[in-house]
Amino acid sequence: MASATLCYLSKLGSLMSRGQRINTYQRWKLSPFPLSSNMSSLIPFSSDFLFRQMFDPTSCTYTYLLADTESKEAILIDPVLEQVDRDASVVRDLNLSLKFVMNTHMHADHITGTGLLKKKIDGCKSLISEASGAQADIHVNPGEKIEFGRHQLEVRPTPGHTSGCVTYVCHEQGIAFTGDAVLIRGCGRTDFQEGDPATLYDSVHKQIFSLPENFKLYPAHDYKGLMVTTVKEEKTLNPRLTKPLEQFVEIMNNLNLPYPKKIDMALPANRMCGIQDEN
Amino acid sequence: MASATLCYLSKLGSLMSRGQRINTYQRWKLSPFPLSSNMSSLIPFSSDFLFRQMFDPTSCTYTYLLADTESKEAILIDPVLEQVDRDASVVRDLNLSLKFVMNTHMHADHITGTGLLKKKIDGCKSLISEASGAQADIHVNPGEKIEFGRHQLEVRPTPGHTSGCVTYVCHEQGIAFTGDAVLIRGCGRTDFQEGDPATLYDSVHKQIFSLPENFKLYPAHDYKGLMVTTVKEEKTLNPRLTKPLEQFVEIMNNLNLPYPKKIDMALPANRMCGIQDEN
Repeated sequence: MASATLCYLSKLGSLMSRGQRINTYQRWKLSPFPLSSNMSSLIPFSSDFLFRQMFDPTSCTYTYLLADTESKEAILIDPVLEQVDRDASVVRDLNLSLKFVMNTHMHADHITGTGLLKKKIDGCKSLISEASGAQADIHVNPGEKIEFGRHQLEVRPTPGHTSGCVTYVCHEQGIAFTGDAVLIRGCGRTDFQEGDPATLYDSVHKQIFSLPENFKLYPAHDYKGLMVTTVKEEKTLNPRLTKPLEQFVEIMNNLNLPYPKKIDMALPANRMCGIQDEN
Repeated sequence: MASATLCYLSKLGSLMSRGQRINTYQRWKLSPFPLSSNMSSLIPFSSDFLFRQMFDPTSCTYTYLLADTESKEAILIDPVLEQVDRDASVVRDLNLSLKFVMNTHMHADHITGTGLLKKKIDGCKSLISEASGAQADIHVNPGEKIEFGRHQLEVRPTPGHTSGCVTYVCHEQGIAFTGDAVLIRGCGRTDFQEGDPATLYDSVHKQIFSLPENFKLYPAHDYKGLMVTTVKEEKTLNPRLTKPLEQFVEIMNNLNLPYPKKIDMALPANRMCGIQDEN
């Protein structure tokens, strides 16, 4: 499926050079949504795979707790400073052994809970992509695997919102944690840090939309109370990412979003793995 | 498992009459959390069972969309008026046929989206328990089954927060929608409408805690950004419901909660299936 989609994208590239890209994309977007074939093959989680999604209402961030229920090894993705006590409670309540506290990228809208969680839970290590430029115990690079118990996540590079953005893919469970690359019917902004809309477009189409269409996508944020989407849904219904590249770039360059409220505080803190003390 | 637990509760009842209940409950509460056995047998969703949880930030309400991916028949549980457009979009995006818009009870904290969804989506019917006293196309009673495609929910009576509260149980998928009966590490208040703490306690222990311990519980609300719990977690860790009955009643009768902000508007509207018009 992935290679077929890559072929399709490659074909798209050649069409683009002949100026036919818009039609191709429109056909892709406007085709009736053939969900029956994908919905009938939803990928169930394994019975030894624990999944908990948690929400921070201030920054609208989703934090994910994943665990191998046999070995009890767990990871937390994108924790938020203000929710550290809650997250630590859940880890304790479930008798889990927290191995990694990791981020999809160096966030600008909230301070990560990583540093404080490291102080509260013995033995866990911070993890982020090498390209993020942020401090961490472990730096990962594209193609590497992150293991917890018998489960593993593949690191896929998805720069564009920031240069260090990655998407973590768990192939067996049919899920990907897309950070701010793909949001539900949206995508991360590209107008600060190292943001670049053309790079984001390329990342999403090559690294995320190339996944099987029934893969579930779990974003770092949602502002409407939605919690999950699929590759198929975003390939078909995303109002930005279904557009041709030039149109996408134009949309992204004209969003006129306000300066992120917390960026001047969040970036320096997140470069250091978050705030280490409670006060 | 259910009958074993019922036996246990029955045994508890006889212990209660001999004044030994507190010790029994304390042992239950303080025992180490043996999650390994339950976590290793998490119940995966079927590949033809679509599940979407959605959040309303104002009332902290969860709305659930469930569907049979083969027949496309879907149901919505506990929709919120202000989120009707979002919910209708998701139903349309996924090409679903909405059969029932249903509520776990007649809510006091928000106006249900039921009436407006009926106007926006052809063919769907409203559903609520007969005991709720609310108007609806279909009234259900304890023990009845609600079918969508090949999937079904059992209606379990769980009065106490209101007299008409029910819990919808999908045995095959190992999930229950508990409304305001069991919340994550909490429970619904019992100080208005027909609220009664002893009734709530009995409902939860007989109808919800008697389910297999690895069943996931999806509540109508959460105020900390948590989204799901399990029978085992609440039987072990719920700070109110693990207490003996008298202590539970005392806690519930002394919460000193403020008068619900929207109750005077919500109850009359929800008795009529929610507001029918957008303005």
